[in-house]
Amino acid sequence: MALAVLVGATGSHIASWLHPETQADASTSIEWHRETAALAERGLFDLFFIADTPAARTSNLAGFSRMPLYMNVLEPLTLLSALAGSTRHIGLGGTASTSFSEPYNIARQFASLDHISHGRAAWNVVTSANDFAARNFGLERLPPHGERYARAREFVRLVQALWDTWEDDAFVRDREAGLFFDPAKQHPVHHEGKHFRVHGALNIERTPQGQPVIIQAGASEAGRELAAETAEVVFSSESTLEGSRAFYRDLKERMAKYGRQPDDLKVLAGMPLLVADSAQEAEDLHRTLQHLIHPDVGRMYLGMDLETDLSDLPLDEPIPEERIPKDANHHKAFFDHIVHLARVEKLTLRQLYLRYERGRQTLRGTPMQVADRLEEWFSGGACDGFMLTFSLMPGGLASFVGKVVPELQRRGLMRSRYEGRTLRAHLGLRRPPNRHVAAQGAAAD
Amino acid sequence: MALAVLVGATGSHIASWLHPETQADASTSIEWHRETAALAERGLFDLFFIADTPAARTSNLAGFSRMPLYMNVLEPLTLLSALAGSTRHIGLGGTASTSFSEPYNIARQFASLDHISHGRAAWNVVTSANDFAARNFGLERLPPHGERYARAREFVRLVQALWDTWEDDAFVRDREAGLFFDPAKQHPVHHEGKHFRVHGALNIERTPQGQPVIIQAGASEAGRELAAETAEVVFSSESTLEGSRAFYRDLKERMAKYGRQPDDLKVLAGMPLLVADSAQEAEDLHRTLQHLIHPDVGRMYLGMDLETDLSDLPLDEPIPEERIPKDANHHKAFFDHIVHLARVEKLTLRQLYLRYERGRQTLRGTPMQVADRLEEWFSGGACDGFMLTFSLMPGGLASFVGKVVPELQRRGLMRSRYEGRTLRAHLGLRRPPNRHVAAQGAAAD
Repeated sequence: MALAVLVGATGSHIASWLHPETQADASTSIEWHRETAALAERGLFDLFFIADTPAARTSNLAGFSRMPLYMNVLEPLTLLSALAGSTRHIGLGGTASTSFSEPYNIARQFASLDHISHGRAAWNVVTSANDFAARNFGLERLPPHGERYARAREFVRLVQALWDTWEDDAFVRDREAGLFFDPAKQHPVHHEGKHFRVHGALNIERTPQGQPVIIQAGASEAGRELAAETAEVVFSSESTLEGSRAFYRDLKERMAKYGRQPDDLKVLAGMPLLVADSAQEAEDLHRTLQHLIHPDVGRMYLGMDLETDLSDLPLDEPIPEERIPKDANHHKAFFDHIVHLARVEKLTLRQLYLRYERGRQTLRGTPMQVADRLEEWFSGGACDGFMLTFSLMPGGLASFVGKVVPELQRRGLMRSRYEGRTLRAHLGLRRPPNRHVAAQGAAAD
Repeated sequence: MALAVLVGATGSHIASWLHPETQADASTSIEWHRETAALAERGLFDLFFIADTPAARTSNLAGFSRMPLYMNVLEPLTLLSALAGSTRHIGLGGTASTSFSEPYNIARQFASLDHISHGRAAWNVVTSANDFAARNFGLERLPPHGERYARAREFVRLVQALWDTWEDDAFVRDREAGLFFDPAKQHPVHHEGKHFRVHGALNIERTPQGQPVIIQAGASEAGRELAAETAEVVFSSESTLEGSRAFYRDLKERMAKYGRQPDDLKVLAGMPLLVADSAQEAEDLHRTLQHLIHPDVGRMYLGMDLETDLSDLPLDEPIPEERIPKDANHHKAFFDHIVHLARVEKLTLRQLYLRYERGRQTLRGTPMQVADRLEEWFSGGACDGFMLTFSLMPGGLASFVGKVVPELQRRGLMRSRYEGRTLRAHLGLRRPPNRHVAAQGAAAD
């Protein structure tokens, strides 16, 4: 069972930074990240993962000024490079956008991270669905979904080609012959595509993993195709066992047409967790966190998902019927859930935001209950492992490492020590052969 | 006297990788870089510096395959982030090109490095005079010099504006008030320029140094103007005391029109060194290194600087007069030097490349001789310090740290321990106030 941890400083709960157990300035603290990575490594995790959006909000600050989310963070590639020296085994994965960077730069930086970490780098390929980001890079708004994915596909293929510039043994460093590299083993890229033109050689040798691991998370049709073609790890976000099974099957079936085996891609199901010694304790902690949500934040989130401005409404009265829009434009599930709580349960605005949990519901329970759920999904064909988030960090991760990991080991679902040295080895992903050598090999057969 | 070391793995001599004292695979070894940074820190250097070109050569491989230069290197930002954890005091500077990256990404990564290193980041702004690099980023060839510098100027000003997005005390993290940051202290950038359009806020708080230190090295008219306006460290490359003095005066005089004080910019003179216990030993080591140059490499370098192909000529005969071009198109000083050795001294091709040293001549001598030269330049108004390169690394640096540094300390020219914690403190550069706070302060006066 593969395990990744999504490292949001202070935790995944929007009010986590207000809980006294967290460190409010964690998001820019390298020491905090070093300690958290060490903790995940003690828990024998496969992957320490950093999400990212290249933007800070500049509107709705009445709400956003009350939460750290993406407003103030260390940049993933610099952060992961710094962590390479304080860890030895755990994979180091980070997000970089194909909409707002250059393939040559991304290829270099992840290749460099793979060398620095001796084979533990992973790149989460995203197209950045965020107009704030677009405006930081010369655009009025985000390009359409299809165009972003077409660019992403070309981008990833090009980066992978750059990673194969040099054969594994190109740098012979033969002092006797005075030869630093074998010119026959350099294969410059000559790419003329719709979005990019690159003619050149990457200026770093092939990496310990052959290529850094490619991660993706897109669940749309275009996202699934891109994943089936290029991804080696996919973070899924289905909320039910059935849904996750269907996603898993669908994705693995799509791979054949790209000449790939199902095992060449690992699906990690997103799983938000809150672990406590008893079910009651877990509920209590969850309630405590909900009550830490500032009313301005609660109202803002409800307003975003109900797709209307609620900022003028009193907190202790129900939302007037005429203020509820007819239908959702964005997240229909979020919208319908709020409408149900408002219309059927007739909750006040305050009761509503205390009850509402955006997106996937957090799994709350004892170590045994959590282990049961993970085993059920894993053994039930819903995933190859999990991408875990914790309401409070690093406390949630510490509970998991201390109490759930031993239970998973007891059940034979987790390793008892790291056996390999690279992220590919941890995940059971093959080291990709260099395409130029593979081609020669095939030609010689 | 400020000291920076330019860290080329194995050393600045083109045949250094062939010398048994160097480590031939140093350029991609993080361990090698950690040890070298630790050595420079023991020597109380201000700055550990990484040069960069985002390209590997793909032609003339008969020669280039015999030398490591820029063919296979760790990427500067990931490398420096990794070194932040293994060092405590020394500044960490790296090159990034304004021609081939996005201002928002550069602003983020250097700001992140400044946080990770607790105030030791420096960005060397270059426009990348290299067609190989251009072809890695969608261009046929490099844009003209003037256009590159106009873009660089806009780029740097924009990055500095992004670094001032947040006032120093914007992130209050006030749990009682439920306020993570003060919205009045966010100042989004609204920039519409000839080369860039950016509307947004940097997603990382103001850094320990206020802003990372800006380095430049351009010696052209446009380069000097850009430096006078924006640089805080300038690497100069004059080969004579007089030339360096003139450059120093010229640069410092240009600053006034940008409202800057001469002390806001430090000129570090480039100084290639080879230190040995006796002058004879230094000469012997230099000769040994010259003799390690492979004939193909010697011929290639001579050919490049004589601006003609010499690859068909016999090694042990003089260059025929009719093969010497009438005049230089690129580096006239290099060209004239070779012509002199060929015509007047009538050297054979082999004798020529053994004698020829490209660019600035290496200062070879005893620790006392080297200290004398540094003192002469520093006290003579030629510079505020030095950017040192060593023929062999890390051996050359080790000799300098062990033998020259104590002599400079004895003369009162160098510190005996780090007094400050940031690169700005080491260099005596002020911490720039946030422009928005400065403006308010001025308005209130």
